[in-house]
Amino acid sequence: MTNEEITSSDGGGAAPTVEIDDMILVSVDDHVVEPPDMFDNHLPSKYKDLAPRVIRADDGSDVWFYEGQQLPNIGLNAVAGKPPEEYGIDPTTFAEMRNGCYDIDDRIADMNANGILGSMCFPSFPQFCGQLFSRTEDKTVALAMLQAYNDWHIDEWCGSYPGRFIPLALPAIWDPEAMAAEVHRVAAKGCRAVTFSENPEKLGWPSFHNEHWDPFWQAVSETGTVVCLHIGSSSELTITSIEAPINVMITLQPMNIVQAAADILWSRVLVDFPDVRFALSEGGIGWIPYFLERVDYVDEHHRAWTGQDLPDGMLPSDLFRERFITCFIDDAAGIKNRHDVGIDHMTWECDYPHSDSTWPESPERLSRSLGGVPAEEVHAITHRNAMRLFRYEPFSVIPEADCTVGALRAQAVDVDTVARPSGRTIERPDSPIRIIDLAERVAAKKD
Amino acid sequence: MTNEEITSSDGGGAAPTVEIDDMILVSVDDHVVEPPDMFDNHLPSKYKDLAPRVIRADDGSDVWFYEGQQLPNIGLNAVAGKPPEEYGIDPTTFAEMRNGCYDIDDRIADMNANGILGSMCFPSFPQFCGQLFSRTEDKTVALAMLQAYNDWHIDEWCGSYPGRFIPLALPAIWDPEAMAAEVHRVAAKGCRAVTFSENPEKLGWPSFHNEHWDPFWQAVSETGTVVCLHIGSSSELTITSIEAPINVMITLQPMNIVQAAADILWSRVLVDFPDVRFALSEGGIGWIPYFLERVDYVDEHHRAWTGQDLPDGMLPSDLFRERFITCFIDDAAGIKNRHDVGIDHMTWECDYPHSDSTWPESPERLSRSLGGVPAEEVHAITHRNAMRLFRYEPFSVIPEADCTVGALRAQAVDVDTVARPSGRTIERPDSPIRIIDLAERVAAKKD
Repeated sequence: MTNEEITSSDGGGAAPTVEIDDMILVSVDDHVVEPPDMFDNHLPSKYKDLAPRVIRADDGSDVWFYEGQQLPNIGLNAVAGKPPEEYGIDPTTFAEMRNGCYDIDDRIADMNANGILGSMCFPSFPQFCGQLFSRTEDKTVALAMLQAYNDWHIDEWCGSYPGRFIPLALPAIWDPEAMAAEVHRVAAKGCRAVTFSENPEKLGWPSFHNEHWDPFWQAVSETGTVVCLHIGSSSELTITSIEAPINVMITLQPMNIVQAAADILWSRVLVDFPDVRFALSEGGIGWIPYFLERVDYVDEHHRAWTGQDLPDGMLPSDLFRERFITCFIDDAAGIKNRHDVGIDHMTWECDYPHSDSTWPESPERLSRSLGGVPAEEVHAITHRNAMRLFRYEPFSVIPEADCTVGALRAQAVDVDTVARPSGRTIERPDSPIRIIDLAERVAAKKD
Repeated sequence: MTNEEITSSDGGGAAPTVEIDDMILVSVDDHVVEPPDMFDNHLPSKYKDLAPRVIRADDGSDVWFYEGQQLPNIGLNAVAGKPPEEYGIDPTTFAEMRNGCYDIDDRIADMNANGILGSMCFPSFPQFCGQLFSRTEDKTVALAMLQAYNDWHIDEWCGSYPGRFIPLALPAIWDPEAMAAEVHRVAAKGCRAVTFSENPEKLGWPSFHNEHWDPFWQAVSETGTVVCLHIGSSSELTITSIEAPINVMITLQPMNIVQAAADILWSRVLVDFPDVRFALSEGGIGWIPYFLERVDYVDEHHRAWTGQDLPDGMLPSDLFRERFITCFIDDAAGIKNRHDVGIDHMTWECDYPHSDSTWPESPERLSRSLGGVPAEEVHAITHRNAMRLFRYEPFSVIPEADCTVGALRAQAVDVDTVARPSGRTIERPDSPIRIIDLAERVAAKKD
């Protein structure tokens, strides 16, 4: 906790210092639902028959099919454009989804309609860390699939609209040497971000405290690649009880990122690899002042016996602010305390097309949260930090004046953003849906 | 997040609005290490031979012995008065501990030396929810032990110094009807607080979402008893990896209370029992503005499909502020954002004799955190809220002028608070102690 004066962002009262139309928005966390043809142009011909493909399942849903298995949930939580009554029901066909989930032209239209200049898109069906491919027994096949994925993502998805995306690679998580090589390979194509797990031990790999990952840390250090840890990327949900209402799980899901933050902050990775940077994707920011105060308290009270020293006598809070990139969707507490969070590493995200997204009213919501915040700080939070930290240079491709919310929305006047019900009959439950109810629903779908 | 202006507590710069000597401090979370003679006066004679007793173990340590078993760690983390180098080593004999841990006269002396008027003391050897007694097969014996514990605690420990303690009962957790009866029994003696688990399911009992506990909720409602949930009372540690440095666990331990807060906030308990109040003991407060914003966001975004409605159309944040009592040790982020936390339910704690305690400099640390906070708010946080919420009325016994830090410290000029090394040779480890190292140390002690 610093001693500086807080400038109140009053979260609803103070006038914006930057007009909505003049804001420039870069979202460092969105999601792509992969289109069925994604492997067509990116696999050596000998692997083409092995590639994941989309099939129509017996129940009429679209599913990815790979190595003899159907993968449910093509579009987990891909509910953009649905009314909130339907948020609990994942779309089961591409036709049920908003096109912008998987079609690059429609994605750009939806970004324009929301005034979003740049976007970083996390994967859907291969899971956050490409776990799907890690289960492939023949690792040459696994690597071919993973590289095809990364090439599609970088060259086709992001490449179709230069200046509009921050590419993000999947890691060859089963082999740190292969991970390192792939980091170098994609960096040469301009990709300087890679997804990883907030806790690899929970996925069955060694922890952050193990030297196992050193080739990977070395490669991201050498290439200036940011390691992005998305909430949920440990595949472990914090469940208080299966009898608990689903709201308990929804509430806690982003808050659990604090575990990864603590785990990494006290790990040897930050000490031994001073150039590694971690992004806490969808991690929120309002918890950070408390967290930083806590880690400094732990350092002060316990350093005499725990044997833990930080580099150059740094405080843990200093180390956090130097090596972590934070991000938020809509987080008034974090904005209000932005100088305690650390304003230089704060970025913003839209989370399209998931249910926590503010699409298509992100500029309005964000502007309200940023009321009273000085313009320079608004620009840092909305785009300049993301550009610097992820080496993203849109203005080299698109004139800055064409990158604003107003300019982008002017290109999207014909985009219909009104929520469209699916037509299914949805009855609101009489009592709160419980975690076990949702688990049973998923199990029933698999049968 | 409300729109009101924040008054900055600058955590180090602004002058105190209440002089240190004029503050009145009530700590709602301390710990008693039970003295060996605690059962002597409180058990019917037929049970006396069955009572837990302290014995000298083969390795020279003092241990409680009950039902044929030795219970290690008489004073887990009871390190008050030790230098920080020794925080990692639990005292193993009463002689190694500061007398104030277990001797009521010395406890009062230590409270006086720290300017503390009132204290609520959590149990040590029976565990936070009296789990020890729940394992006793003969439940009439279990209840006799538990009642003896409560009688010792209320009549002897707290009763020796009227006006100095907020009594806290153990629950007969194995039987909700017995719990209810005991809540009534101790309420008749003036005890209006009971410990419970932050997650009873993790202890093998039904969850907060189960009607199993209704007789207990009914009893605490009828008697105006506060249900105190201490961090760690689910007996479940959040472990990122056993390879992680111990600092990871120390950092996260208080932060996990957010799980209990979410679990209860969305549970039927608050809806069906509007008079139940929960205290989040050692839960900290800096996380609360973010948490309240998150639960309101979940309500807004997801209420259309989750079927979850709150009473009278309340916001989740309103419900939290109405039914939860929060507390902190030293928490600048929480103080700074106190109006977003909710100032009416904010209380303070000392955590004597544990390693996170600010004893014997609590008034100095707290005064620094409260710099710039208006005097009325200081008084609410330091003692008035605790007095109101726990029905604690010290001024009916001790004149208010004698309750201040200055007045109490004047009674303790002869108390030696200088840290005393045990004389054991302690070498600071070369590399950070890991969770597994500590686990192995505990296991070795059991052998």
